[in-house]
Amino acid sequence: MSLRACSRLQGRLLSSVARGFSSLPAEVEEAFSTAAGAAPAASTRPAFSHTPAGRNHLFVPGPVNIHENVLRAMQVPGQNHRDPWFADFYKKCLQDLKMIFGTQEGTTIIFPGTGTGGWESALTNTLSPGDKVVTFRYGLFSHLWIDMMQRLGLDVHVIEGRWGDGAYEDKLAEVLKADTEKKIKAVCVVHNETTTGVTSDIPEVRRTMDAHNHPALLLVDGVSSIGALDFQFDNWRVDVAVTGSQKALSIPTGLGMVCASDKALAAMKTATSRRVYYDFADMLRTNPTGNVPYTPILPLLYGMEASLKLLREEGMANVAARHHRLAEGCRKAVEGWGLQTLCRDPRWKSDSLTVIEVPQGVDSQKVVDVAYAKYNLSLGIGLADVKGKVFRIGHLGNMDELMLSSALCGAEMALIDAGVPVTPGSGVSRAIEYWQQTAKPIPTREHMLA
Amino acid sequence: MSLRACSRLQGRLLSSVARGFSSLPAEVEEAFSTAAGAAPAASTRPAFSHTPAGRNHLFVPGPVNIHENVLRAMQVPGQNHRDPWFADFYKKCLQDLKMIFGTQEGTTIIFPGTGTGGWESALTNTLSPGDKVVTFRYGLFSHLWIDMMQRLGLDVHVIEGRWGDGAYEDKLAEVLKADTEKKIKAVCVVHNETTTGVTSDIPEVRRTMDAHNHPALLLVDGVSSIGALDFQFDNWRVDVAVTGSQKALSIPTGLGMVCASDKALAAMKTATSRRVYYDFADMLRTNPTGNVPYTPILPLLYGMEASLKLLREEGMANVAARHHRLAEGCRKAVEGWGLQTLCRDPRWKSDSLTVIEVPQGVDSQKVVDVAYAKYNLSLGIGLADVKGKVFRIGHLGNMDELMLSSALCGAEMALIDAGVPVTPGSGVSRAIEYWQQTAKPIPTREHMLA
Amino acid sequence: MSLRACSRLQGRLLSSVARGFSSLPAEVEEAFSTAAGAAPAASTRPAFSHTPAGRNHLFVPGPVNIHENVLRAMQVPGQNHRDPWFADFYKKCLQDLKMIFGTQEGTTIIFPGTGTGGWESALTNTLSPGDKVVTFRYGLFSHLWIDMMQRLGLDVHVIEGRWGDGAYEDKLAEVLKADTEKKIKAVCVVHNETTTGVTSDIPEVRRTMDAHNHPALLLVDGVSSIGALDFQFDNWRVDVAVTGSQKALSIPTGLGMVCASDKALAAMKTATSRRVYYDFADMLRTNPTGNVPYTPILPLLYGMEASLKLLREEGMANVAARHHRLAEGCRKAVEGWGLQTLCRDPRWKSDSLTVIEVPQGVDSQKVVDVAYAKYNLSLGIGLADVKGKVFRIGHLGNMDELMLSSALCGAEMALIDAGVPVTPGSGVSRAIEYWQQTAKPIPTREHMLA
Amino acid sequence: MSLRACSRLQGRLLSSVARGFSSLPAEVEEAFSTAAGAAPAASTRPAFSHTPAGRNHLFVPGPVNIHENVLRAMQVPGQNHRDPWFADFYKKCLQDLKMIFGTQEGTTIIFPGTGTGGWESALTNTLSPGDKVVTFRYGLFSHLWIDMMQRLGLDVHVIEGRWGDGAYEDKLAEVLKADTEKKIKAVCVVHNETTTGVTSDIPEVRRTMDAHNHPALLLVDGVSSIGALDFQFDNWRVDVAVTGSQKALSIPTGLGMVCASDKALAAMKTATSRRVYYDFADMLRTNPTGNVPYTPILPLLYGMEASLKLLREEGMANVAARHHRLAEGCRKAVEGWGLQTLCRDPRWKSDSLTVIEVPQGVDSQKVVDVAYAKYNLSLGIGLADVKGKVFRIGHLGNMDELMLSSALCGAEMALIDAGVPVTPGSGVSRAIEYWQQTAKPIPTREHMLA
Repeated sequence: MSLRACSRLQGRLLSSVARGFSSLPAEVEEAFSTAAGAAPAASTRPAFSHTPAGRNHLFVPGPVNIHENVLRAMQVPGQNHRDPWFADFYKKCLQDLKMIFGTQEGTTIIFPGTGTGGWESALTNTLSPGDKVVTFRYGLFSHLWIDMMQRLGLDVHVIEGRWGDGAYEDKLAEVLKADTEKKIKAVCVVHNETTTGVTSDIPEVRRTMDAHNHPALLLVDGVSSIGALDFQFDNWRVDVAVTGSQKALSIPTGLGMVCASDKALAAMKTATSRRVYYDFADMLRTNPTGNVPYTPILPLLYGMEASLKLLREEGMANVAARHHRLAEGCRKAVEGWGLQTLCRDPRWKSDSLTVIEVPQGVDSQKVVDVAYAKYNLSLGIGLADVKGKVFRIGHLGNMDELMLSSALCGAEMALIDAGVPVTPGSGVSRAIEYWQQTAKPIPTREHMLA
Repeated sequence: MSLRACSRLQGRLLSSVARGFSSLPAEVEEAFSTAAGAAPAASTRPAFSHTPAGRNHLFVPGPVNIHENVLRAMQVPGQNHRDPWFADFYKKCLQDLKMIFGTQEGTTIIFPGTGTGGWESALTNTLSPGDKVVTFRYGLFSHLWIDMMQRLGLDVHVIEGRWGDGAYEDKLAEVLKADTEKKIKAVCVVHNETTTGVTSDIPEVRRTMDAHNHPALLLVDGVSSIGALDFQFDNWRVDVAVTGSQKALSIPTGLGMVCASDKALAAMKTATSRRVYYDFADMLRTNPTGNVPYTPILPLLYGMEASLKLLREEGMANVAARHHRLAEGCRKAVEGWGLQTLCRDPRWKSDSLTVIEVPQGVDSQKVVDVAYAKYNLSLGIGLADVKGKVFRIGHLGNMDELMLSSALCGAEMALIDAGVPVTPGSGVSRAIEYWQQTAKPIPTREHMLA
Repeated sequence: MSLRACSRLQGRLLSSVARGFSSLPAEVEEAFSTAAGAAPAASTRPAFSHTPAGRNHLFVPGPVNIHENVLRAMQVPGQNHRDPWFADFYKKCLQDLKMIFGTQEGTTIIFPGTGTGGWESALTNTLSPGDKVVTFRYGLFSHLWIDMMQRLGLDVHVIEGRWGDGAYEDKLAEVLKADTEKKIKAVCVVHNETTTGVTSDIPEVRRTMDAHNHPALLLVDGVSSIGALDFQFDNWRVDVAVTGSQKALSIPTGLGMVCASDKALAAMKTATSRRVYYDFADMLRTNPTGNVPYTPILPLLYGMEASLKLLREEGMANVAARHHRLAEGCRKAVEGWGLQTLCRDPRWKSDSLTVIEVPQGVDSQKVVDVAYAKYNLSLGIGLADVKGKVFRIGHLGNMDELMLSSALCGAEMALIDAGVPVTPGSGVSRAIEYWQQTAKPIPTREHMLA
Repeated sequence: MSLRACSRLQGRLLSSVARGFSSLPAEVEEAFSTAAGAAPAASTRPAFSHTPAGRNHLFVPGPVNIHENVLRAMQVPGQNHRDPWFADFYKKCLQDLKMIFGTQEGTTIIFPGTGTGGWESALTNTLSPGDKVVTFRYGLFSHLWIDMMQRLGLDVHVIEGRWGDGAYEDKLAEVLKADTEKKIKAVCVVHNETTTGVTSDIPEVRRTMDAHNHPALLLVDGVSSIGALDFQFDNWRVDVAVTGSQKALSIPTGLGMVCASDKALAAMKTATSRRVYYDFADMLRTNPTGNVPYTPILPLLYGMEASLKLLREEGMANVAARHHRLAEGCRKAVEGWGLQTLCRDPRWKSDSLTVIEVPQGVDSQKVVDVAYAKYNLSLGIGLADVKGKVFRIGHLGNMDELMLSSALCGAEMALIDAGVPVTPGSGVSRAIEYWQQTAKPIPTREHMLA
C-alpha cells in the first residue's frame, strides 16, 4: 500500500473512530489487520474472557452438542427423588435405556458418574484380583482401561496394536487357543477408540471367542459407540457394555450407564473385587422397585428421557445410518484435502469421529489452536502417542449435515492457517456432493417435495 | 441394480430390521432411498411433527439466532416491574440502547411491540393527517410503510424504484426542489430493505435534504440495519429511527425501539394524529423516572441488556466490520455459483442479508422448500414482486463465519436439488478463501497464535 | 446486656470473624442486630445489587409467577415464523385460546403488545371519533381506559363510582333508558379492576342492556379476570373482550389477546378510527391461513401453548374454583387481621386479587416497602386515589395454597413492622383452617390417600 | 344436604358444565367434593401425571431448591473441557470451593459423583484393608458409612447411639484411651445426620482426640452441613471432609466434593485400598494444571460457580446465621404444635433440617403422603429405625423465611389431615413472631427503611 493510500485510510479510519461507530470500508479493514496494535484494548483483558458473536462450534467426540429439546427438559428447579412419582419414572428410565444397548435381556444400571466409573463397575463386579483378562491397546482409552485393570489387581494380557488399528481377532484367537485351561476370565474390548477413530468389530471378536468355545466374559467399552453405531448387546452376547451420557446420548456428562448379561450378574456373586459405590448389588436390590441406593442426578435423567425420545422417534437403524452418512461425508472431505485418516482399514473406520493425520512437519496442535483462536471451532486434539500428529472431528450424537459442513469449512481454514497446502473448498465440496446425492427428506416433511 | 443384488440387499436389510437395530451398509442405504415406501410409518404422522437430530439452521433476515448468553438472561420466573429496583434498571436500558443508534443526543423509547409498531409511532407522533411526506417504494417493507402512511391519512408522494435498488437521491432532489413552499413534512426512508437486500445511503439522503435546505423531518426505518450496520443518528441528523428486537439485537420479537431527535419531539407537540398506545408522550412523562405507562416485557429487557453487553464488548465498529466480512463471503459465494444478487449497485449491497436471483425457469420457492425439507435449513423466501425469483440468506445479528458457511453449503445442496446447475463447493470455497485470508484472532485468544 | 456479657460476645464474635466463618451463637446474633454499623460493607454496594438466598416472592396482580413447564417451553434459540410448520401451529394457538374466553363463536386475535394495546384495538376497530360510549370509573385502570377513549375522540359518558365498588347496574340502566335514540355505541366495562380488587358483574350488565333492548356493543376489559375467573364470552354476549399474557395466563407480558363477536366484526367495517398496528383487518385477512401481518413473539406463543395445556388439564371450572378457594383463604386472613378489603360488597369481591385497607394513620406504602426490604416479598402498592391507603395481594394465575400462605405470613410480618397491631398468625391461621377443611387431593394423586 | 338442595345444585352444576366453563358457587363446590365420582376423568390418567398449578414445594434435606441464578448458569448447550479456557476456570473452581470448607490449607477435589462416592474416596485414599477405625451409628447415613467401611475391609469399632443423639465424645474418649498402641487409624464422624436432624460437635470430637494425643485421622461427612453450617476445616484440623452438590450448595446432584489435609495426603501414599475412579492421585496429578483425569460435569461446575458467588456475596457467617434463624423459627413452630424434635439436646439440634416426632399412634408417613397428595408439599419421610415415627423438614441451602413459612403452613394442614391434634396457625405463628422480631433488612435494601 502506498504511503498516500495509507494516509487516506488513516483519515477515514480516524473519522470513523471519532464518530464512535462505523462500517469499515474494505481498505480500512485490511489496513487495520496489518497495523501494529490494532486492538490494544484487548491485551488488557484476561485470556478467553471475550465472548464472540455466533456460537462455539463443538466438534469433539464428546461432550457433544445438546439438542434444544434436551436442554429444555433439564431445566428443573429442584426435585425430590423420594417423592412417589419417582419409582415409575426410574423404572421407565432403566427400561427405555435398553434400546441404545440393543438389548431385551440385559439389565441396565445407571450410575451418577462417568464412563470411567461405568468401566470400573464392569471390572469390579465381575472379576476378582488376580483374575486373568485379555485386552488390546490401540489408543489412549484402551490404555487407560489397562491401567485401571492393573490397579484393580487383574492379571492383564495386553495385545498391542498400531494406534489406528482395531482389535486384532487373529491375535486374540492365538491367545484364546493357548488358554487351554480357560483361565482367562474376560475379554475386554474398547468398541470405538476415541483417540484414533477406530471401531473394532465386536461381532468378529465374539465369533473368535465362540470358535474357541471360550467361556470368558466379553466386556465392551461402548462409550463413544453406543447410541450412535450399531450395537447389539443380545445378538453379540456381550456381558457388560458401558457408555456415558455425554457421548451419543448427547446430554451432559454425569451418567455412567451399564448393561449386564445374566452371565455377568452370575459372575458378580463370586467376584471379590472390593466395591461399594460402583457395586451392581445395591442397584439390583433397589432398582426393581424404582429406588436407588444414593441420590440420582434428576436433571440428567430428564435429559436422558428427552434424548431417548428423539432417538426412538428417529429409529436406531436410522440413527446409525445418519452417523454413517455424516462420517462418509467427512471421510470424503479428508480425501479431498489429500490427507488420510489415522485408521487405514475401511472395516474399522469409525462413524463416530474422524481422526485425520496432518503431513509430516506440521504440528496438528496448531490446527486445533488456530481453529479455536480464529473460528471458535473446537476440534479434538491428538492425545498421547499421536499428539501433534492428528486432529479429530467428532460427529456423533446430536449432529446433522449442515453442522458438520461448518466443521469441515473451519477445518479447511485452520489447515491452511497451519501451513497445510489445502485448496479452499477441496474437502467440503466432496462432502456436499455426497450428502446432496444421498439426502432424503426429513420425516414428516416429505410432502413439501411432492 | 440387478435383481440379484436387490434380493441380496433385501436379505441383509431384513435381518437388520429383525435384529431391531443396524448400521445400514451403504448399498442398503441406497436401496432404501430409491425403494418406494421406504418409511411408511412416517406418512401417518402429522406434518412437521418429527424433530430431527442436530438443529434448525436459521438464516432468515430476522428472527435470528439468539446467543446462549441472551437465552440464559431471559430465563426469569416472573418479576414485578413496580419493585423499586426497576427504575434504575430501566433508565439504564434506555441509556444503553443509544449505542446501537449511534446517538448521544437522541431520546430512546422502548415499546412492547414490533418494528411495525415502532414505525407507526414514528409517523403518528410527528405528523398530522393530511401532512405531505415523501418516500420510496423498492420492496415489500417500504411498500407496507406507504400503506401505513396512507391509512394514517398522510399525503404520500411515492418515488417508485426497481426492487433491488435503493433510495434514488436524484429523484428525491427533484421532489424537494419542486417543494418551494416547504410543504413536505417528512422524508421517510427504509434504510435496509429486507425483501431485496438493499441498504440505502442515508448520509447521501441527508446531504440531498441539506442541499435544498429542506426542513422536513428525516424518518428512517432501521429495522434490519440498526445494531448491525453503520448507523449514526446524530451525525446523519436522523429525526426518528426505528428498529425491532428480533433483528440485529438478536433477541426474540417483542420490542419496538425508537430514537427521536429534539426536532421530532418538538413536532410531537403539534402532531394531531391520534395515538395512545404508541404515543411518545406517555413514555416521555414516565421514563425519566424509570417508569413505564404499561407493563414492560421484562425477559426481553434482560435479553436486550445481555445482547448490548455483547455488542459493547465487541465494539460497534467491529460489529459492522464483522457484518461486512460475512456479507462479502456470502457475495463471493454467489459469484462462485454463477448467480447474482438482486441488488446490482455495489454501494447499496446490504451487509445484513443477501438476496439471490435464481435463473429463469427455476422457482426460488423450491430452493427454500428443499432446504427446509432435506437439510433443516431456513432460508428467506421471495416476497411479493420477487416471489419465486429470489431467495434470501440472512446474516445479521448473532452470526459468525462457520454458521454462515453451513448456510452456504446448504444453499448449494438445495440449489442443486432445485435444478440450478451449481458445482458442489463452487460457492462456499470462495467464501472460505476470503474468510481465511482476512480472519483475525478472536479478542483475548490472540496469545494462542503467538 | 451487661458490659461483661457484651465484652464476652465481642470476643466470640471477633474470633468467629477472624476465622472467616462461623455459625454465630444466638447471643452474638442478637448483639449483631443491635450493633450500629453491623454490615458496613453493604453501604458501598449499589441499591438492590444484593441477590438474597431463596426467591423473590411475587404476589402482585400481574406479572405473575411463571410455571416451570411454561418457562421451559419458552426456551427457544430463534425460529422462523415463515417456516411451513408455523401456519398450523398458529391456527391452533388461535383456536386453543378460545377456551379461556369461554367462546366457540368469537374470533380470537393475538397482538404482540399488551392489554393496553388490546383495549386500544377494541375501541378503534369498533368505534369512530365522536361516537358516544358509556363506561364506569372505579379504579386506575377504568380511569386509564377513559383517558384512552377521550384521546381517541370518543364522546364518553362516565358513571363515577366509589373505588372499591363495581359497575353500578342501576346507574347504567338510567343512562341507557335515557338514550332513547340509541346513540350510545358501546358500553365499556373493566371486568376486574386491578387497583381495587373488584369484579364487576358482567352478566348483570348484559341483563341491564337487554332489559332496555339496547343495541350498544359490550366491550369488556378482562385483563385480570380472563383465564382466572368465570368468563363466558358467548353466553354473556360480550362483543370484544381483552386480556394480556402476564395475568391469568401466567406467561411474560407481550401478548395482547382479544376476542371479537360477529357483531363487533360487523362494526369494524364502518368504524373510522384510524388504526394500523392494532387493526383487526390485517389479522383477519392473514390469520385464517395461519399467517400474521408482522412478526409474532414465538417464545410467548410457546409459553401460551404450555399454559393453555395446564389450564385445559385442570379444567376451566376447576381453575375458577381454585381461584375462589385461594381468594377465600386470603379474605379470611384479612378478617383475622381485623382489617377489611377495599371492596365491601361480597358479590364484587375479586378472586384474582385482594386489596386490603390499612388502618388510618398507617401508610400502606410502608407495608409494601418493608415486605420487599426484609422478606423479599413483592406486594402490590396502592395506586392513584388509594395510594398509601391499601396494599394488594395478587393470587391469580399460576398459584397454589402454600404459595399464597407464604404471602400471608410475609404480609403479617410486614404489617407488624409497619406498626399495624396484628397478632402473629392471626390471619394465616384462618386461611390454613379454611384450606385444610376444603382441600381435595390433587388429581392423579388420590390413590395415595385411599 | 336436602334432596331438594342437592337437586338445585345439580341443576346449577350441569348448566355450568354445559356452558363449558364456570366458577363453581361454593355450594356446588362442596357438593362436588362429597359426590361420588366427582372427577371421573381423573381415574383414567396415570398416577402423578397431572401437573397442578403453582409449584412443588420442596422441603426435603436435599436435593434442595435451586436458585434462579444457578439454574440460568447451568443452561449450556455443550462444551469441550479440553478447550484452552478450561484450565484457569477449573483451577478457580477448586480454589473457590475452599470457602465452604473453611479452609486455606486443605486440598479440594471434585468428583463427578455423589457424596457417597466422596465418602468412599475419603476411606480408600487414606486407609488400607484391615485398618482399625472408630465411628458412631446414630442414623441411616452413619449406618451406611459403617456398611461401606466394612465392605472396604476396614475393622470398624462402632459406638452405638440413640437415633436423635450426636457423637458421644465421652465414649469416644474411652475408646481412644484404650487404644494405647494407637492402632486406630481414623475417627469417622457424620457431622450432620440427615435422618435425625442432629449436628454433632466436631470441635469437641477434635478436642477429645487431642486430649488423648491421638494421631488418628479425623474424617468428617459434611454432606448436609458444609456450606450451610459453621465448618472450619483448618481450625478443627479435619483430615478429610466430604460434601455433595445437592445439599447446601443447592445445585443438582452430581458433584462429590472432598477436602483433604496434608496429613491425609501423606496417608494416601501408604493406603493400599484399591481405588481408581475415586483415587485422589489422578486428581492431584492433573488438577494443579487445571486438568482432570476424566470428563467433568460442566453444567454443574457452572452451577457451583454461581452458587459460590451467592454464598460469597452473603458471607459465610451470614449464611450460617441465616440457617440458624430459619431453624429456630422451625423449632418454635414445632413447640407451637405441641410436638418435639427427635433431637433432644439443644447443642445438637441441626440448623440444616428439623426432624419432628409424631404422636404415638400416628404414622408419620401419612403426614408426608397427605402433604404431597393435597398440598404439593415434599417433606422428608422417616427412614429405617425412625420410619413412621418422624417426618423431616429440610431448610438448608437456597432458602428464606417465606419459603419455610409455606412448609410450616403445609405441615400444619397435613398434620391435621393425618389426625394429629394441631390448632391451625399454632406453629407458624410462633415462627412468624420470631422471624419478624429478628429480621434485618436485606443488604442493599436498607435505605428503603431509612
